[in-house]
Amino acid sequence: MYALSWSLKNIIFQNSSDTLILLYVKPHHHDTFTPLDSTGIMDDPQTPGHVLSPKASAAIKKYSQDVVDCVLQKSKRICKDLENVKLETQVERGNPKDVICEMSRKLNADLLVMGSHDYGVMKRAFFESVSEYCSQNVKCPVLIVKKPKPHAGAGN
Amino acid sequence: MYALSWSLKNIIFQNSSDTLILLYVKPHHHDTFTPLDSTGIMDDPQTPGHVLSPKASAAIKKYSQDVVDCVLQKSKRICKDLENVKLETQVERGNPKDVICEMSRKLNADLLVMGSHDYGVMKRAFFESVSEYCSQNVKCPVLIVKKPKPHAGAGN
Repeated sequence: MYALSWSLKNIIFQNSSDTLILLYVKPHHHDTFTPLDSTGIMDDPQTPGHVLSPKASAAIKKYSQDVVDCVLQKSKRICKDLENVKLETQVERGNPKDVICEMSRKLNADLLVMGSHDYGVMKRAFFESVSEYCSQNVKCPVLIVKKPKPHAGAGN
Repeated sequence: MYALSWSLKNIIFQNSSDTLILLYVKPHHHDTFTPLDSTGIMDDPQTPGHVLSPKASAAIKKYSQDVVDCVLQKSKRICKDLENVKLETQVERGNPKDVICEMSRKLNADLLVMGSHDYGVMKRAFFESVSEYCSQNVKCPVLIVKKPKPHAGAGN
């Protein structure tokens, strides 16, 4: 949300025929889960996870869809004053890193805008952030917007 | 140059009181060099490298300055049609990664624009690109612009 707001506030795209696509990537497997064994290591990934009851599965699916709807509605509200730019939304399923790179290529994107967490040195040693991966693997220009940390002493 | 052209062509900054700063980072030690020993490992970094003759040193310094002047002049030519934006140039000395991060902080930059090489998977395993390092360590938004590869079959 911050990356979207920042881009709309600070950057104007010259070409009024531009299309802004809000891409939401849902993770895989909302209706099944793969249990961990006692060592914390995932069971054979070839075997499907436990299948939830139809009721629980439906509830999780509904919750997942509610999250998507909520995020996209909030994003659209941020874009409501956007003039001369066509707004589209797209929901895909998969690993965010791969889906974002693949969609940027498929859509022939002119610019990819991404939010980013400000991982510390330790976390960065273990996790590669989605924005980092995409900025390396996407061919088009990438704009990475980090949410600024609240100033010390500013409360909250 | 490509990152600068792309930004000017595709993005307009809303605030007409913006300042565009062209930052050039010269590497350290243009007038001395530290020889490698037979193992290819650098001599004790605490000892200064061989000192060149004053004539050779002056020639290298002049060449280095010529490169800076040439790059900045070319950059300014690219910016010549820029309206309502103040243009400044800044030349610093040091490790590009560190200097870019430090200057972004010092100048309280709103946006850092960087070019980037499209390293392959193998090269990325050994080298961390300057843009990658900066996008992780700079607090402000970062725009990374890669030069597109010429299309296959398009000659050159």
